[in-house]
Amino acid sequence: MFEFKITAKDKHSAARVGVFQTPHGKFHTPVFMPVGTYGAVKTVTPEDLNKCGAEIILGNTYHLHLRPGEKLIKKFGGLQKFTHWEKPMLTDSGGFQVFSLAQHRKIYEDRVEFSSPLDGSKHIFTPRKVLQIQQDLGSDIMMQLDECAAGDSSHAVAEVALNRTMRWMETTLRHWKNRDKQTLFPIVQGVTYPDLRKLSAQFCAALPVAGIAIGGLAVGESKTDFLKTLEFTLPYLPANKPRYLMGVGEFSDILNAVARGVDMFDCVIPTRLARHGSFFAVSGKRATISNAKFKASKKPLVAGCQCEACRNYTSGYIHHLFRVNETLGQRLLTLHNLTFLLDFMQEIRESIEAGTFSALLRKFHIKV
Amino acid sequence: MFEFKITAKDKHSAARVGVFQTPHGKFHTPVFMPVGTYGAVKTVTPEDLNKCGAEIILGNTYHLHLRPGEKLIKKFGGLQKFTHWEKPMLTDSGGFQVFSLAQHRKIYEDRVEFSSPLDGSKHIFTPRKVLQIQQDLGSDIMMQLDECAAGDSSHAVAEVALNRTMRWMETTLRHWKNRDKQTLFPIVQGVTYPDLRKLSAQFCAALPVAGIAIGGLAVGESKTDFLKTLEFTLPYLPANKPRYLMGVGEFSDILNAVARGVDMFDCVIPTRLARHGSFFAVSGKRATISNAKFKASKKPLVAGCQCEACRNYTSGYIHHLFRVNETLGQRLLTLHNLTFLLDFMQEIRESIEAGTFSALLRKFHIKV
Repeated sequence: MFEFKITAKDKHSAARVGVFQTPHGKFHTPVFMPVGTYGAVKTVTPEDLNKCGAEIILGNTYHLHLRPGEKLIKKFGGLQKFTHWEKPMLTDSGGFQVFSLAQHRKIYEDRVEFSSPLDGSKHIFTPRKVLQIQQDLGSDIMMQLDECAAGDSSHAVAEVALNRTMRWMETTLRHWKNRDKQTLFPIVQGVTYPDLRKLSAQFCAALPVAGIAIGGLAVGESKTDFLKTLEFTLPYLPANKPRYLMGVGEFSDILNAVARGVDMFDCVIPTRLARHGSFFAVSGKRATISNAKFKASKKPLVAGCQCEACRNYTSGYIHHLFRVNETLGQRLLTLHNLTFLLDFMQEIRESIEAGTFSALLRKFHIKV
Repeated sequence: MFEFKITAKDKHSAARVGVFQTPHGKFHTPVFMPVGTYGAVKTVTPEDLNKCGAEIILGNTYHLHLRPGEKLIKKFGGLQKFTHWEKPMLTDSGGFQVFSLAQHRKIYEDRVEFSSPLDGSKHIFTPRKVLQIQQDLGSDIMMQLDECAAGDSSHAVAEVALNRTMRWMETTLRHWKNRDKQTLFPIVQGVTYPDLRKLSAQFCAALPVAGIAIGGLAVGESKTDFLKTLEFTLPYLPANKPRYLMGVGEFSDILNAVARGVDMFDCVIPTRLARHGSFFAVSGKRATISNAKFKASKKPLVAGCQCEACRNYTSGYIHHLFRVNETLGQRLLTLHNLTFLLDFMQEIRESIEAGTFSALLRKFHIKV
């Protein structure tokens, strides 16, 4: 049920176009996955997401485990039935949230214990438990529980975390069932240390999995470290499997990663920015809708954009909605930002197919 | 451009069905007008409103005057162009908000002065100014500035307010331009005093206007006073003009008023309830989505309801959205409540046409 087919390759970089088949349909890579933390991409419906061009969305295991709980979602027939999103879904492992959001976190050889920031309740994540949660959620692509070492960790700390992550993957693999219905991605870790990333990538490359994720990047490291780490990680990953760079959604980061062979992305940026009144403008720039210059503007957010916000409303009206705290404004900017970014992913795919990807990189002043 | 045509009458009550033509199209009465305070019905788009069955919406002159100001909206070509709602719009006079929301309100013979609760800025509303604001807004139906006496006012206080309201209407009439493009409704006042309501209704009945509003009801008076006041007011209003009962949106109030000959209604109830997690259930009942009984419910909010929320989502999922504070939940309940109430208005119209309105009244235990 899971098949990745590469349909075009760029001649001047490692960029490629592909299609990934899942039980809930296919998606085209390079792909961006909007984040639906609690089973809803904030402010929009599945019909809206379809119009924006989304082919796969992400759900957060950590959040869904706390509320409403995977057992309830299982009773509804899984995430897709529960949320009315009928296309592919990926769930993360919750590891990143445990390490960034949870309180009183304690990590052991076989588990991580933490308290919910909602009510202080105690929770335990083991590799098997996290797999079980995702099996109950019924996502198409599951992620292993990993230990996310801080971006400034010493080599020793990073190595301990990586070794644990690899052992946890072995445990996860042993308990993975229904392999035709739900696939499982391991996660490459190792902070920015070349030897650790190589070890981790080679470990992941040898596993019987349909795709591989790269974690622990875009967590505050320098742009140079970000790019270098991609460069000394990707060559060790098999070319015939999709590579998923977790938590990355900046235009230039996406281009840089695609040029190095990355196929999948997710990030809260487009939706979070929208709720805070920022929207994507041309060439990866951003604008703030509450800026006085938009007050009397009869122009759309972006000329030529075919999103619902730009087709039907002026910047002046959306400016007004934000000034008077109408949540419709957040929804309209969300529709714009998602459409704009998903259109950008389509532009990337088409430019690779047309042999013009280098020109797109130059437009963003990116050298590979 | 403004024409009211009665197309069916009930044999056992004063209920009637009609159609009102405006420059932005027609609407069918009895009609319910969703409230778009700041030029947006909270959480939904014009496309959503069309799907809910809305034919006309209301904008609040007071709020739009304060933010973004009528001059700006005029620059955009008026409210409909500004908001992308292309069907008929009614604007109130702002009088009710001045008397219920504004600070440091002082009333004079020719004007009311008040401070904005937003920034303390001073504002003056005169009958002419309020007309001018609405002319700038470009609504199809404008309302006169009236003085809304409190529901427990003495006869003397009510009489003073009514006399001022009538004089203000005379001033308004003198300054009313573009009568083909924007019509103007006077407002019947007089608290619950039969002699004052009669005087006010007769005054309004004699004016060269296309419709007449009834104000100062549903402001806390008893149900008995509400019904009695309708009964001794409506007979004095001309049968061939639409009667608009301001601020009323409860199912039983609507039925009672329709049976007495009212044609138009507006209320924030369906949208405000939705944002607070309440939704309309059968027979005018309400339910609270956060109630634990909905947690695992795979049923729609209301079986058979054809709104977007009921067609696509379970009560359990919408319960979850409210529990995790996803604003999508507010939007879905808004779509449901508006659809449910607008479907109810259609049921009223169809029952009058079919001669079964009495049965509908009995279903709600209403005797006329």
